[in-house]
Amino acid sequence: MKVDIIISADDITKSKIENKIAVVIDMFRATSVIVTALSNGCKEIIPYLTIEETLEHAKTLNRENYILGGERKAVKIDSFDLSNSPLEYTEEVIKDKTVLMTTTNGTRTLTKSTSAKRILIAAMINAKAVAKELLHIDEDVVIINAGTNGNFSMDDYICGGYIINEMLNQDKNLELTDISKTANIIYEANTDIISYVKQATHYSVMKSLKLDDDIEYCTKKSIIEIVPEYKDNKITLMSNVE
Amino acid sequence: MKVDIIISADDITKSKIENKIAVVIDMFRATSVIVTALSNGCKEIIPYLTIEETLEHAKTLNRENYILGGERKAVKIDSFDLSNSPLEYTEEVIKDKTVLMTTTNGTRTLTKSTSAKRILIAAMINAKAVAKELLHIDEDVVIINAGTNGNFSMDDYICGGYIINEMLNQDKNLELTDISKTANIIYEANTDIISYVKQATHYSVMKSLKLDDDIEYCTKKSIIEIVPEYKDNKITLMSNVE
Repeated sequence: MKVDIIISADDITKSKIENKIAVVIDMFRATSVIVTALSNGCKEIIPYLTIEETLEHAKTLNRENYILGGERKAVKIDSFDLSNSPLEYTEEVIKDKTVLMTTTNGTRTLTKSTSAKRILIAAMINAKAVAKELLHIDEDVVIINAGTNGNFSMDDYICGGYIINEMLNQDKNLELTDISKTANIIYEANTDIISYVKQATHYSVMKSLKLDDDIEYCTKKSIIEIVPEYKDNKITLMSNVE
Repeated sequence: MKVDIIISADDITKSKIENKIAVVIDMFRATSVIVTALSNGCKEIIPYLTIEETLEHAKTLNRENYILGGERKAVKIDSFDLSNSPLEYTEEVIKDKTVLMTTTNGTRTLTKSTSAKRILIAAMINAKAVAKELLHIDEDVVIINAGTNGNFSMDDYICGGYIINEMLNQDKNLELTDISKTANIIYEANTDIISYVKQATHYSVMKSLKLDDDIEYCTKKSIIEIVPEYKDNKITLMSNVE
């Protein structure tokens, strides 16, 4: 069982992901939102590349059935219900609703990953559950970091390292590529997460926007046990294996 | 002054390198060969993508004026004079000669980097000299790791981290991308180099071929003070700045 990492959405190629189980990470904050929203009982999440597409689809639904969520430049989009803060996706707000979502890096990464065999969604907050499912599926894995505007992002990278570390705890025989080994090394040297993540460019952006509560929440380790899956253009709880 | 890293030859794009000073690294072993050969007085090194091109050019030269060097699958090419071991490029063998060279990852990376403003050549063995020249040139830098067959390679990555660390020792105000910061973190946690590099896939390949002497030599830090430059399809000692 091989585990590889792609360091940003810009580096996704069909040959790197086809026939593999993809794990998409955008921990600050799109995939933390997705994990939180599904954990809090939303019906499904539909990701869109553009604001226009999102609003177009919204027109076809009853207003009480959906929530518009996402960001541009880390800030809530005008006329949308929620920003990209996972803390806003409470059970009270999103229970049984469809979340129509557009974000800068996360949704782009999802839509670029569709050549993979399956696409699971991971963040720090559900990493252990993702590791467990990957070992259960037992096929080659490619962890896809959304990154930030096409670049490597420290936050997504250590999140991948954490998932790999959790897998290694249960199976020492994983075949890791050099980039995967290095992510695990970084995680092992920074198990508190924040000592590494606080050096990230994206962290500075969030700090400047006073998103301290989001930083604290998104860097919590394995507080949620569900695994979302992206399939047929929507994200729901992972369907059972076998 | 920004410093970025591209993790493999496959990830080079024009937009990532144009107007920047590129630093090409293939420390196991092509760029270690280049640094060693120029340090030992060869006239120039001409890199080729294919064995056929190399032999074609050789026909135009007098036999006593050139040396054929390189590898395929880390092994010497039939009918070539030297392999890709820097230890073979002694003054006795290559003084005043033209080295016609073809390697799997290194020469491909060089030929893909020609959109850069300048292309310098680095390895562990000349890292400090490269760092010094980059600070002297004082323009945005992109460190290009050859990698191994299109993949991230731990050896090239820590070599980039070492160069960055040497630059930081003299200028704390470098603007590092997340991937550059991480390379420096890896270097600082493994200043002996080998504790990290011994986990590299490429290291295992070299070990299996009993290239222990090459490993030892290529992981020596800053034993050579020259900086090669690739310009007009050939590599010579770096021309003076200004």
